[in-house]
Amino acid sequence: MAVYTEVTDEALSAFLALYDIGTLTAFRGIAEGVENSNYALKTSAGDFILTLYEKRVNKEDLPYFLGLMEHLRARGLTCPQPVRARDGRNLQELAGKMAAITTFLPGVWPRHVRLEHCEPLGAALARLHLAGQGFAMTRRNGLGPDAWGALLDKCLPQADSVLGGLGTELQGWLARILADWPQGLPVGQIHADLFPDNVFFLEGKLSGLIDFYFACTDILAYDIAVCLNAWCFETHAELNVSRSMALLRGYQSVRPLADAEIAALPVLARGAALRFLLTRLYDWLNTPEGALVTRKDPLDYYRRLRFHFAVSGAGAYGL
Amino acid sequence: MAVYTEVTDEALSAFLALYDIGTLTAFRGIAEGVENSNYALKTSAGDFILTLYEKRVNKEDLPYFLGLMEHLRARGLTCPQPVRARDGRNLQELAGKMAAITTFLPGVWPRHVRLEHCEPLGAALARLHLAGQGFAMTRRNGLGPDAWGALLDKCLPQADSVLGGLGTELQGWLARILADWPQGLPVGQIHADLFPDNVFFLEGKLSGLIDFYFACTDILAYDIAVCLNAWCFETHAELNVSRSMALLRGYQSVRPLADAEIAALPVLARGAALRFLLTRLYDWLNTPEGALVTRKDPLDYYRRLRFHFAVSGAGAYGL
Repeated sequence: MAVYTEVTDEALSAFLALYDIGTLTAFRGIAEGVENSNYALKTSAGDFILTLYEKRVNKEDLPYFLGLMEHLRARGLTCPQPVRARDGRNLQELAGKMAAITTFLPGVWPRHVRLEHCEPLGAALARLHLAGQGFAMTRRNGLGPDAWGALLDKCLPQADSVLGGLGTELQGWLARILADWPQGLPVGQIHADLFPDNVFFLEGKLSGLIDFYFACTDILAYDIAVCLNAWCFETHAELNVSRSMALLRGYQSVRPLADAEIAALPVLARGAALRFLLTRLYDWLNTPEGALVTRKDPLDYYRRLRFHFAVSGAGAYGL
Repeated sequence: MAVYTEVTDEALSAFLALYDIGTLTAFRGIAEGVENSNYALKTSAGDFILTLYEKRVNKEDLPYFLGLMEHLRARGLTCPQPVRARDGRNLQELAGKMAAITTFLPGVWPRHVRLEHCEPLGAALARLHLAGQGFAMTRRNGLGPDAWGALLDKCLPQADSVLGGLGTELQGWLARILADWPQGLPVGQIHADLFPDNVFFLEGKLSGLIDFYFACTDILAYDIAVCLNAWCFETHAELNVSRSMALLRGYQSVRPLADAEIAALPVLARGAALRFLLTRLYDWLNTPEGALVTRKDPLDYYRRLRFHFAVSGAGAYGL
């Protein structure tokens, strides 16, 4: 929920003149997306999204993100299409920030996840993984296993203010996850943040995926583990196995999982739960007064992490 | 900048079924508007705005606001048109809140006010005042002179934390403004909050007015005083007389001011500055930690108020 950078009329006009997308009709801040400033941009040529990249996004990663979207789109995945300016570049500068225009994707993200969302979600995720093959660039997962230790260290001094003993518990869990982290699984371009607000549906059908600003080159099945955490739990941290079965069924209908990927699902799910627990904990402890960001309760992922530690194998997820 | 109420897919579908506006294509929160939750709603029939009325808006005022928009629109003013549901009502319930759909108004609000905005603004304000004639309902100005004392009292205990001596200074100013407040000036439907973010422009022309949720029945020239404060000051509280002249010229090209209205401009401008100073001061002192609202510096209006007390007549504004 955020518009961090205000764009003046003059700057916007000069910026739009770089593109061949008609004349401006409307321009409104969108109250979604935590990392960047997003505007709904309407021109005589149609609807677009204008994104200004704020400081949490590394400038050097932008060609990867935009290139990946172009690559996926060219291979039939429905995601925003970066619009190239007259100079052929899909990145420009606006209001002192790097900025890009993408096509507008119709659809509505599900505020309530329902069982019928999960099979199409799985299938779309697998299509993303297949479509990502052949994309030449790579990006390290900045929030992957080798980043979790440093993130936890930053949270430790205050962690117990959220829950008594949390710091010590997380240290133990992190050590176990890192010790068990799988090697040699298929790797490729992953979304890494495919939460419900990044998946659009229209008339009961999945209509597109958005927000590739955590995308990176990592274990494909880790993306499934993110979705298991993000889509398949009831409010009180109970796994809804019907949903996880549907998710995995959808995924495997497009890209069947290898035995090693299936066997690794519990530890990948622990890792994914820890990743979101740590970033939410960090944000919880560090959100300044009056900030325009809704803090998300880190304990939701604490409970999920406990669940994933209690399971003995992928059978718990319905496989 | 706000979406306060999340709307589930099921609730949205049921709500839209009450209307005859085609099938849903997109639904996104808008990061504008402080009082209500606003969504950009796209259907097969076009673009709309869905507004959910939050608790700062009094339910009983909604028929006035929506009725006024319909009345103004029917008389040729470009403002959002409330869409009536199949049952003929322009107000329905959604997610436990009162809600309305209005037509989408093209245009972009000016992030930087320029001289050329001010004459069209004045003309549009005068057209609003004329178009409002004959609207049968009335609404008391809830933030008018008789509300300022109570608002100041709530701020007094902490006012000096913002600026030493502010509380006492404001008490003195309030007394003077109330003693001088004009009687017998022309009264009608006023916007009462016509700031730049409520005025859209397109290709250099004023394309419409939005956000009638402070509209009320009050002194017409008070609306000019609000615009003088909101549009005609440089950052450091210096009046830009070219802008105020343009604003007044635009207004009088449509509705010439009576002598008594002109004579009252300084005290009306003081009152308008005090009104925004008080609400901003109150919000400044009472914005809870982590709130999704940008606090606006109340001292901007303190400086404007000082300016308006220093002027001896409407000549200072270029009349």
